[in-house]
Amino acid sequence: MSVAGVATPAPAFWWAREDLGYVDGRLRFAGRDVAAAAEAAPGPLYLYSAARVAANLARLREGLARTGSRTRVYYAIKANRFAPLLTAMAGWGQCGADICSPNELDLALACGFAAKDISFTGAGVANRDLDRLLAHADLTINCDTVGMIRRIGERAPGRAIGVRVNPGRGVGYGDSPRLTYAGDEATKFGIYREQWPEALATARAYGLTIRTLHFHVGCGYLSAQLDRWAEAVGAGLAFLDDAPEVTTVNIGGGLGVPCQDGDAPLDLARWAAVLQRLFAGRDVTLAVEPGDYIVKDAGLLALSVTDVEVKRDVAFASVDGGFNLAPEPAYYDRPSEAVACVPRGLDPTAWRPVTLAGNINEALDIWAAAKPMPPLAEGDRIAFLNTGGYGASMSSNHCMRGDFTEILL
Amino acid sequence: MSVAGVATPAPAFWWAREDLGYVDGRLRFAGRDVAAAAEAAPGPLYLYSAARVAANLARLREGLARTGSRTRVYYAIKANRFAPLLTAMAGWGQCGADICSPNELDLALACGFAAKDISFTGAGVANRDLDRLLAHADLTINCDTVGMIRRIGERAPGRAIGVRVNPGRGVGYGDSPRLTYAGDEATKFGIYREQWPEALATARAYGLTIRTLHFHVGCGYLSAQLDRWAEAVGAGLAFLDDAPEVTTVNIGGGLGVPCQDGDAPLDLARWAAVLQRLFAGRDVTLAVEPGDYIVKDAGLLALSVTDVEVKRDVAFASVDGGFNLAPEPAYYDRPSEAVACVPRGLDPTAWRPVTLAGNINEALDIWAAAKPMPPLAEGDRIAFLNTGGYGASMSSNHCMRGDFTEILL
Repeated sequence: MSVAGVATPAPAFWWAREDLGYVDGRLRFAGRDVAAAAEAAPGPLYLYSAARVAANLARLREGLARTGSRTRVYYAIKANRFAPLLTAMAGWGQCGADICSPNELDLALACGFAAKDISFTGAGVANRDLDRLLAHADLTINCDTVGMIRRIGERAPGRAIGVRVNPGRGVGYGDSPRLTYAGDEATKFGIYREQWPEALATARAYGLTIRTLHFHVGCGYLSAQLDRWAEAVGAGLAFLDDAPEVTTVNIGGGLGVPCQDGDAPLDLARWAAVLQRLFAGRDVTLAVEPGDYIVKDAGLLALSVTDVEVKRDVAFASVDGGFNLAPEPAYYDRPSEAVACVPRGLDPTAWRPVTLAGNINEALDIWAAAKPMPPLAEGDRIAFLNTGGYGASMSSNHCMRGDFTEILL
Repeated sequence: MSVAGVATPAPAFWWAREDLGYVDGRLRFAGRDVAAAAEAAPGPLYLYSAARVAANLARLREGLARTGSRTRVYYAIKANRFAPLLTAMAGWGQCGADICSPNELDLALACGFAAKDISFTGAGVANRDLDRLLAHADLTINCDTVGMIRRIGERAPGRAIGVRVNPGRGVGYGDSPRLTYAGDEATKFGIYREQWPEALATARAYGLTIRTLHFHVGCGYLSAQLDRWAEAVGAGLAFLDDAPEVTTVNIGGGLGVPCQDGDAPLDLARWAAVLQRLFAGRDVTLAVEPGDYIVKDAGLLALSVTDVEVKRDVAFASVDGGFNLAPEPAYYDRPSEAVACVPRGLDPTAWRPVTLAGNINEALDIWAAAKPMPPLAEGDRIAFLNTGGYGASMSSNHCMRGDFTEILL
């Protein structure tokens, strides 16, 4: 109920924040009316907020500063490589770029990152990849296998390298086996303890100096997983004792972002305290390479409702975009919060479950099942939140439904 | 053991056939040496065999001929839309094209299919989609919702349409819930029995003539699932009694292809006998829209081994392409047979388990776990079979590792 002249505050939605929420019954993001922006686009629309990216980056850097170590941030561009965003980030000078392919290297350079501020960590690195990477003397290259150390040695003896090690422990989002990079089962990533002497000997044989130790032991972890993450980082540091020339320890990324009601956000102070404890007295630069943490909640995908219909006992609303635009909900069981841009009523207790279905001819193309929503109608706009990371960058043209617009606000 | 001058026949691999197998210890496909073709390509290479596509199509048409009905085949181009292949198929004149988006329509037209030989069945169809589809008077458009019938009626009253119905039964590959298009739980697809009177009334209100009844009740089904598939098709035909103007019944696609040792292929004679029984005495054209059945086993993806290394107790071989090039093994648990192109030894009893890992920085990027393989070394080529369908067409540029070459043999 509203009284003339007095705005009724909307109930607090878990996802609302200063730059994201309802104003006069319309969703606003980064100062923009989302429905109006979507109507001006020819179809699916990704909106990204540069200010939110900057805020996430600044918060992370503040946390890192508390560790007392020298620190570096490499933004993992695989999460979102929209060129205007990368160009802005390069201009800010607050982070470097983490890359995992030669094409990503070319893009990062083109957007203004210098090779010395770029760190490569990849799997299945071919010789033709190495030829492109090694053309940049200042680039940090982390080796994922002993074979890669040897192949770099053959091509560029005496070079400085990094080595990706696998401490055999780690945590994944919701502890999903699909997202576990390190753990009890052997994964494809990095050099395990058993291979470590061979890796050191191979580097020595070619005069390679191991300047960086890299390990990635978490993916999408939140506060509840911090203790196990801390153990895994500690296990990674054990490799350091045998590598006196190391000047940088890169603990990877994986800092998570809440994506559904009830997810407790990552406690950055606790996170920093763990790092402070683990790195105390170690004369190394502490590097991190977050992706989602920087961009995920800085982007949303606006889609349009094409039909609302009850099929059997299920209310379906179809939208004009599918899982090929943002695969995490369908493929990774990682929800994207669906928010009506101009809801008919802001009282969630009056909302009813709706299954939001995409426009790809596949049964799994469901954005959300039985999601409480206000009454929906054809033409309504729905914003899918937390799609700023691993959305557009993983999109495909499946069914030739891959067209979308991206705007950096 | 081979005797001078006498070729020793290779053991019978389950996947071998006249145009695919080892000759003098090297894999040949469609008359081509696969390793040599791969070496001539700059990276990942898809090879497609036009002859195999033609043979699959001919076999299907022979099966259909046995049903005694008038029949039509629409090839589902979402499975593989490589333009040279589509152009060849349009030239053969043995099939039309099944499409699910306006962009697919434009591509099919550009490759030589006439609008009268194209059938559209899609989900989440937006009004802007309809505007592009309705520009072609001869195009068959199957409506997925009552709302879509109405929206076509508003734009093109009096037009002929098709209606996609959902009989509430169906079968998916391996009965995977991810691939179930129709079954006990309500899916997003088609118009259910309860909505049928409303659909008919809506069509009538706009003078729309329902010429096609469409239902898709299986995905990747093989012989073991034929009985349940037959029941589902029968349930779909129940809609026909209320739609006297229907001249075509499209039973969708979904005919499966064996993808691992032990998969019993689809018995096409039994399949045809089911259709003969169900369509006996019905004066309609029987249409099918296969995708995988036509192209899946007509294509392979050749990748190169970058590293072979034991990590803990697991032997890993990394290759220079990842799940983003062919997502079925990683996302759908649908294996692609990995075959060494120039194996060191053809006796599988001497082979050892190897985990084949892709070059994407994701834990799930595994082509095959513990797959018995001959000894592998850096630079070896591995062919991933049965990637002619839903491989390249679903590929993404994740990690900017999306480059590949396609060749139609």
